[in-house]
Amino acid sequence: MAKKITIRDLASAAGVSVTTVSQILNGKGDRFSKATQEKVLHLRDELGYVPDFNARNLILRSSKTIGVLVPNLNNPFFSTFIHGVDITARKEGFIAIVFGANHEVDLERFYLRQLMERSVDGFIIASASITAKTVDDLLKPWHTPYVLFDQNENRAGDRLETDDYQGGHQAAAYLARQGHQKIVVLHPKLPTININNRLKGFVDGLGEAGVTFDAKQWIVPAELTKAGGYQATADVLSKKPTAVFAENDEMAIGLMRGLHEQGLSVPDDISVMGYDNIDLDEYVMPQLTTIEQPLHKIGETATKMLIKRLKNPSMDWQKVKLAVKLVERDSVKHL
Amino acid sequence: MAKKITIRDLASAAGVSVTTVSQILNGKGDRFSKATQEKVLHLRDELGYVPDFNARNLILRSSKTIGVLVPNLNNPFFSTFIHGVDITARKEGFIAIVFGANHEVDLERFYLRQLMERSVDGFIIASASITAKTVDDLLKPWHTPYVLFDQNENRAGDRLETDDYQGGHQAAAYLARQGHQKIVVLHPKLPTININNRLKGFVDGLGEAGVTFDAKQWIVPAELTKAGGYQATADVLSKKPTAVFAENDEMAIGLMRGLHEQGLSVPDDISVMGYDNIDLDEYVMPQLTTIEQPLHKIGETATKMLIKRLKNPSMDWQKVKLAVKLVERDSVKHL
Repeated sequence: MAKKITIRDLASAAGVSVTTVSQILNGKGDRFSKATQEKVLHLRDELGYVPDFNARNLILRSSKTIGVLVPNLNNPFFSTFIHGVDITARKEGFIAIVFGANHEVDLERFYLRQLMERSVDGFIIASASITAKTVDDLLKPWHTPYVLFDQNENRAGDRLETDDYQGGHQAAAYLARQGHQKIVVLHPKLPTININNRLKGFVDGLGEAGVTFDAKQWIVPAELTKAGGYQATADVLSKKPTAVFAENDEMAIGLMRGLHEQGLSVPDDISVMGYDNIDLDEYVMPQLTTIEQPLHKIGETATKMLIKRLKNPSMDWQKVKLAVKLVERDSVKHL
Repeated sequence: MAKKITIRDLASAAGVSVTTVSQILNGKGDRFSKATQEKVLHLRDELGYVPDFNARNLILRSSKTIGVLVPNLNNPFFSTFIHGVDITARKEGFIAIVFGANHEVDLERFYLRQLMERSVDGFIIASASITAKTVDDLLKPWHTPYVLFDQNENRAGDRLETDDYQGGHQAAAYLARQGHQKIVVLHPKLPTININNRLKGFVDGLGEAGVTFDAKQWIVPAELTKAGGYQATADVLSKKPTAVFAENDEMAIGLMRGLHEQGLSVPDDISVMGYDNIDLDEYVMPQLTTIEQPLHKIGETATKMLIKRLKNPSMDWQKVKLAVKLVERDSVKHL
């Protein structure tokens, strides 16, 4: 396999200087003959010369690249989010490089370092598992802009969030309106702040509807994945609830599989409600009632915030909160 | 926001030369005092100095980066594939940068150029929609190694495929064994070669089981997405089949939603079989019978092939074909 063609190779093939080639390729070749200009452009295509971005980066100190860290590429939540990032970045002349770190702290740090070494202009960090320590240790000393989505703590920095408290509150109000009082909540063992806000909104929402929620009795621990919801089936059934609020759609879909395998029908025997509104919700049976997060808009907004920061490095911290809303489908029964 | 720390800043803070810093950071600082070495290492961490990969790239002519192009990040098929790429690349000291181009030819070319400008060492191209023309126009003149998966044509280059013909054949043999003779095939309007091989294997498999397949009658066009399968529902039902072979799982899952909305039960009223074995197959009801492609292994193998090529640029083209297998679940009825 041949070596990559350099500007020197191209100049030598055309029988002109490197400066001449550089000026012609940069659209500043007017002072050369038409023949010379055409020869250089033709040879560029024939030899397949591509300008070296690394050399350009050293001069511009910008790679026109945004690093994006998400917990899990497998969750459809993040593919819609990434699509929003992607489209917005391209409109602004950037490209987005995305990594999924599976909630592994070491892997998150590894990717952040790798991206940093590749001179990304800034980061969008959508991983809720990234710790305050990682932000302090890595991101701050690098002096590279970042936008945090779904972060663990209310720290300095540009921050984007959705209204988790309102989302939990809406879910509770809806289930109470449908007559449910015995409601299991599927909640992870190591919840992030945003998930805790979701739960807090839910408990308050039930309270306002006159339903007391005993956390000890009604919270069942489960991972935020399809497998997590599925594995929680027996624990859920032991509580004899009329409804389950799963703190994301993936776990709701996993639980529905478990319930179905136990011969139970959703929503006739037990109601299930999710959170996120991933595209899958319309393809499970019954279709899933959920709280919609504006996934595409979250990606768009995070990208706009980061690019604004790149243009105005010294402006005040940005803080944006996006609204969520109830999407009613077929998985909750009116008692 | 402060500027990125350079090696010059670090040298100046430590009161030593750039050469001294460089040697100490590269583990060649033995000839300097312990105090100087410690001062430099301490200041590196305190100031947050990160070596500039772009500068290093110019010297090494390698960015230790693999570009990966997939059609669609939304299809769980590709998230499992990417996981296989990712793990294998990291083991070998590379990182993988992944782009989804939504089958848009211009976007595919855009990303290939962008990655090329960022000096990736090679590409894994898992997009079946990439054309021979793009390969000829872009990849060849760049002299950058690439591995093609699921490609349109049998071209020069390192190539990885799964046995689509056998997969189609196994699906047909299985459906025939269950007593089905009236079988709709969901098939895209602009099929790639691998999808056509799948169909060819299917038709031959039915033939060997004594079932004639009239393509005009039994092929229903549909996109290879959940929405595509869903939208084909009415066309499928107009053929009055006992079974449907969907050429990927996503379209099978979309069709099952459509059938359910028509009040039909799978598999009691109509059987559905998919292709790929994405993780979702176990979470739909009924669980989907399918042909399993070894998704993780495809990612692993493609990455190993590319890295082998990087180490041996002049070796013969590699060609690898991976086997597929039937996974029997609950979506096909024995007649």
